[in-house]
Amino acid sequence: MTPETSTTTSAPAPQVSPRLSLNSATVKRAGLPRVFEVAGEAGIGAVGLWREEVAEVGLDVAVKQLASSGLRFSSLCRGGFFTMPEGTERRAALDDNRRAVDECAALAAAGAPGSAAVLVLVVGGMPAGSKDLPAARAAVADALAELAPYALDAGVTLAVEPLHPIHCADRAVVSTLEQALDLAAPFDPRAVGVVVDTYHLWWDPRVAEGIARAGREGRIASFQLADAMVPIASDVLLNRHLPGHGVVDLAPLVEAVAATGYTGDVEVEVFNADVWATDPLEVARATAASVRHLAL
Amino acid sequence: MTPETSTTTSAPAPQVSPRLSLNSATVKRAGLPRVFEVAGEAGIGAVGLWREEVAEVGLDVAVKQLASSGLRFSSLCRGGFFTMPEGTERRAALDDNRRAVDECAALAAAGAPGSAAVLVLVVGGMPAGSKDLPAARAAVADALAELAPYALDAGVTLAVEPLHPIHCADRAVVSTLEQALDLAAPFDPRAVGVVVDTYHLWWDPRVAEGIARAGREGRIASFQLADAMVPIASDVLLNRHLPGHGVVDLAPLVEAVAATGYTGDVEVEVFNADVWATDPLEVARATAASVRHLAL
Repeated sequence: MTPETSTTTSAPAPQVSPRLSLNSATVKRAGLPRVFEVAGEAGIGAVGLWREEVAEVGLDVAVKQLASSGLRFSSLCRGGFFTMPEGTERRAALDDNRRAVDECAALAAAGAPGSAAVLVLVVGGMPAGSKDLPAARAAVADALAELAPYALDAGVTLAVEPLHPIHCADRAVVSTLEQALDLAAPFDPRAVGVVVDTYHLWWDPRVAEGIARAGREGRIASFQLADAMVPIASDVLLNRHLPGHGVVDLAPLVEAVAATGYTGDVEVEVFNADVWATDPLEVARATAASVRHLAL
Repeated sequence: MTPETSTTTSAPAPQVSPRLSLNSATVKRAGLPRVFEVAGEAGIGAVGLWREEVAEVGLDVAVKQLASSGLRFSSLCRGGFFTMPEGTERRAALDDNRRAVDECAALAAAGAPGSAAVLVLVVGGMPAGSKDLPAARAAVADALAELAPYALDAGVTLAVEPLHPIHCADRAVVSTLEQALDLAAPFDPRAVGVVVDTYHLWWDPRVAEGIARAGREGRIASFQLADAMVPIASDVLLNRHLPGHGVVDLAPLVEAVAATGYTGDVEVEVFNADVWATDPLEVARATAASVRHLAL
């Protein structure tokens, strides 16, 4: 059901795409259970959560709150940060990723039907003091090989997120969809997929072929929408905005994902100081409004 | 002559690679003729200039100062900024690019033997109010088609510079070496080449194959060195530093360019607030020192 084809009038918020998911980073100050409340009040049917806010109330409480919210669960952010060489720190990171897999499985089971057990992986940047980019990228491949069987057993898909190249050094040595797909290729698509995030990928001359390939290979585990701003924010991490509030023509990207047959949830995930300073309910409503022009 | 093989002791600064060029952006506050002086005093044999500082003293004066400096000329920055749709503004931009070609030819003719008539093109970002990225990219192709014959006549190579993807919207819709090479492909390599700038390209998983292809196709018109910093500068345009002062392993990139047979000048071009606040002679000497570990 899209706004254009809807004929029901009894639904609580008929103009909101039923595929829309509110990523809790967009309402960063809300916390649980307020994220669930504002999503519901704005007529949004799904949420993506961050581990920090789940940890704040405890997994069991988060699971109960999610279950009683009636919302779908679309992803957990985030695993990853495993680019360091072998050693204690790396072992701790991989253990933490296994815990994230477990949390993701518990949350997905508690969400409404149609929930997705997807763990978003921000793989990590250059290890402190290192300039060895190939080694950092190899460490990602090794981590996936180690975690994939664990994820498969738990019924969780690890979703490798290519981040904007500006974050290659500080957050993710995976910068393009093609690179993420190459990393995912050796593994069962149920265990390892990719995230398509418009903010991170819009500039890439190969993004259309990357999306088509991701669809063909059954790897689109998560689709996230955010716009890019000009001028660039002084904290470049926060250079994102709600769809339609920046310079990115999102419609062709939405169409490219739809053309692959992807019918899963579409998360709006925005890091933006002004958005974060706004009342969460207002943000949730603005989020719902921001995608109305898109064919979700 | 490299530092390792030099046997002369009478040269003014024998440790400085004879292929090193000081891009005047690195000593932004210096202006002409101070740029020539500090390059010479630091033992650097070539300079790349910006049009603004040439305009400040006038082209004729700049030409005379360059000629009497005895330095080679390695590039002029910058042409480009022609992504807007057809109309008065676009015509003015293309006319301005023709003037830049003429200035470049005059400066290259005044430089010492081995000078290069290379005009660096920063193609421009998204036109104000537009979200049409394909149109902006098509406008670049059209501009090259219009300017290439003029450049060829003048003996100037237009060097398309892929900028870091963070500048796709505000400065250059050309973000990768592959994309720049595709744009250059229809034209005589004497008329249209590319810039290989390590700051802009280091993160790209395809950078090695891009450099190899650029060499094979005879397109490397300029090679620029800069490092990338972590944490990211609050003005992301200035997130660069002298070689060795950031997170990028420059040696493999230098080797990849050398492997293509490129023997031209190697410019150090750094946008960095701290570097700009430092005395230009000190910066020129630090620039010379910063590349000593590289096989230029």
